[in-house]
Amino acid sequence: MRRVTLLTDFGTRDGYAAAMAGVVAAAAPEAAIDHASHAIGQGDVFAATLALSRYARLYPDGTVHVVVVDPGVGTARRPLAARVDRRYFVAPDNGALTLILQGAQEAAIVEVMDSEIVADASATFHGRDIFAPAAAHLARGGTLDELGPAIHDPKLLAVPQPARTDTGIAGEVIHADRFGNLITNIPGDWLERDASGTTVTVAGEGVGPVRRTYGDVAAGAVVVLVGSTGMLEVSVRDGSAAQRLDVGPGTAVAVAAREDRG
Amino acid sequence: MRRVTLLTDFGTRDGYAAAMAGVVAAAAPEAAIDHASHAIGQGDVFAATLALSRYARLYPDGTVHVVVVDPGVGTARRPLAARVDRRYFVAPDNGALTLILQGAQEAAIVEVMDSEIVADASATFHGRDIFAPAAAHLARGGTLDELGPAIHDPKLLAVPQPARTDTGIAGEVIHADRFGNLITNIPGDWLERDASGTTVTVAGEGVGPVRRTYGDVAAGAVVVLVGSTGMLEVSVRDGSAAQRLDVGPGTAVAVAAREDRG
Amino acid sequence: MRRVTLLTDFGTRDGYAAAMAGVVAAAAPEAAIDHASHAIGQGDVFAATLALSRYARLYPDGTVHVVVVDPGVGTARRPLAARVDRRYFVAPDNGALTLILQGAQEAAIVEVMDSEIVADASATFHGRDIFAPAAAHLARGGTLDELGPAIHDPKLLAVPQPARTDTGIAGEVIHADRFGNLITNIPGDWLERDASGTTVTVAGEGVGPVRRTYGDVAAGAVVVLVGSTGMLEVSVRDGSAAQRLDVGPGTAVAVAAREDRG
Repeated sequence: MRRVTLLTDFGTRDGYAAAMAGVVAAAAPEAAIDHASHAIGQGDVFAATLALSRYARLYPDGTVHVVVVDPGVGTARRPLAARVDRRYFVAPDNGALTLILQGAQEAAIVEVMDSEIVADASATFHGRDIFAPAAAHLARGGTLDELGPAIHDPKLLAVPQPARTDTGIAGEVIHADRFGNLITNIPGDWLERDASGTTVTVAGEGVGPVRRTYGDVAAGAVVVLVGSTGMLEVSVRDGSAAQRLDVGPGTAVAVAAREDRG
Repeated sequence: MRRVTLLTDFGTRDGYAAAMAGVVAAAAPEAAIDHASHAIGQGDVFAATLALSRYARLYPDGTVHVVVVDPGVGTARRPLAARVDRRYFVAPDNGALTLILQGAQEAAIVEVMDSEIVADASATFHGRDIFAPAAAHLARGGTLDELGPAIHDPKLLAVPQPARTDTGIAGEVIHADRFGNLITNIPGDWLERDASGTTVTVAGEGVGPVRRTYGDVAAGAVVVLVGSTGMLEVSVRDGSAAQRLDVGPGTAVAVAAREDRG
Repeated sequence: MRRVTLLTDFGTRDGYAAAMAGVVAAAAPEAAIDHASHAIGQGDVFAATLALSRYARLYPDGTVHVVVVDPGVGTARRPLAARVDRRYFVAPDNGALTLILQGAQEAAIVEVMDSEIVADASATFHGRDIFAPAAAHLARGGTLDELGPAIHDPKLLAVPQPARTDTGIAGEVIHADRFGNLITNIPGDWLERDASGTTVTVAGEGVGPVRRTYGDVAAGAVVVLVGSTGMLEVSVRDGSAAQRLDVGPGTAVAVAAREDRG
């Protein structure tokens, strides 16, 4: 039994998300369908690829992950299907797979052109008419090749990259999660194993060293740590760093060796 | 394996939606349970029937669709179960099945009176005590007849109907979806095949001809098109028509042949 | 096939909830996974145990219920797994199981210490790294003992208790649900079978006798009844008692025999 996960910005109240699930259920009756989320911000493709990168590889081999955050529906953007390291992905060609493809060891991508799928598609709801049928095809054990011709130039989002500087590492906030944790683009493995001798600044203001976990500071205090996805995060224990520091994506974050005062 | 879908206005945070799923899981262990949505506006039966109409027929034959938007719980309104064109429905008799029944080729409806189900029902949570058990009965392959006697007078909501006028078509907005798309009651198949020679007005203001898709206008512009459910919709590309035009359900929408100026 | 339900305060948009589902799916491929809710208020452990108490016992024997509302992640609080009356529970030791354990006939609890699970856990996301793997272990038919040693002192929340008074019953509001129903800590079975001769006060203001159901009052009126979970509730028919009365958890509620005026 293959699983199909659905990630969209549809919300659930209009029945659009359920329409996608229904199409998958009808065409791949044995597939388990998992609503990963329908609460992505409208048209926020970066948030979609970030969320996807947090769960895609945790699912079993063969899982089909569908992403429909698709402000370009009704334009010429291509519908894609891909196999990346033993899992499948179906999404518009708008960058939704950026972090999956950048982390891939092996990837094959096709443009979905199968006439049975594309011929009768509406102009405004490709989630139901193209992406769900393509996902069902893969969930039934169908191949990528049957969906369309290979492509090699998927659109990738320009993800801000961290840099090593004279004094340490320069990066930025790329996302604020539901808890107000500020996720940065600084990989935890860029840090020294013992990072207690560092100091971190957010928008130029010092917020302490890199610590191990929330419990290392008092409730309500700012804490910097390597988060669950391996990136440096700025948090407030039992609170919201996004609110406390009043910053968001794009804000500069730097890590420096702490100056000795002796 | 029959599927059971759940559509309510319960939200999820109180555990009421999960209570319904638990009852179905206990009584029909093989059934796949799909949470279609629990985000219907409180007591908004029309929104429920509209959402349901978007996905019900896409699910496989034999699927059991449960709708519990039920402001009348604890009054004399009847609990219903129905078979409509090879799928099953369970809902209070408050109009929640209006669009399903109006689009039916074949329908059989019963009032749920089975004493094993009804006898111990609470006075305030029929979703858990009546509708979920009735759905599980159908998901196990039980028959409608076993649930209760046939009825022929289900409550139907008065859905505003469009009209043909001297100058074209007069209709209205019936729903604003999560994207701010204004869904009207004007069926796309009432339009000429080439509708580029029309002009559409919303509350008397012209918003252009009927186009094919979002990509036919610039980002931020108003676009009128036949939406994914076959009805005329007024949208803003990459924006919200409901906000831009500041209108909602009940607002007049008209389609007219464009006047020649020659 | 065992079922696994997930209850968190994660929301869905960041992909954290899907990460938990993915871990369960990979380690227990046959398990059906049900997202009970990810909308618990952040860190609101009492809301979690209350929601859980509404659905846990309705699921089939053997179901594994996971609760991750875990403001203490990264502190010394223990991860627990429990078997309570033929169902399983996995949660941090912060009171999330309070109402389940208080209602139990039989309970066995262990601290999750299995080295395969705990060794590689991140410091900030035990839902993915400890609770989901422990749930998958149980869903595969694994035993509690294999997860860790028995413990006998789980943390329990101090739930306000009702009291019998000279004039009747004194209790309080413990929760306002999504509909604005005020759930109290007064059990329905403390009331006389015929409670029509009572008067209920909320913060000292009379709100009428205990009635049977919403239909017993006019739309918009306050109604007191025994709710679907067996507790006394204060509601407004087709409205919100929380808004109308402008009260919430902690507000005093009393039931008294109505004074005769003769």
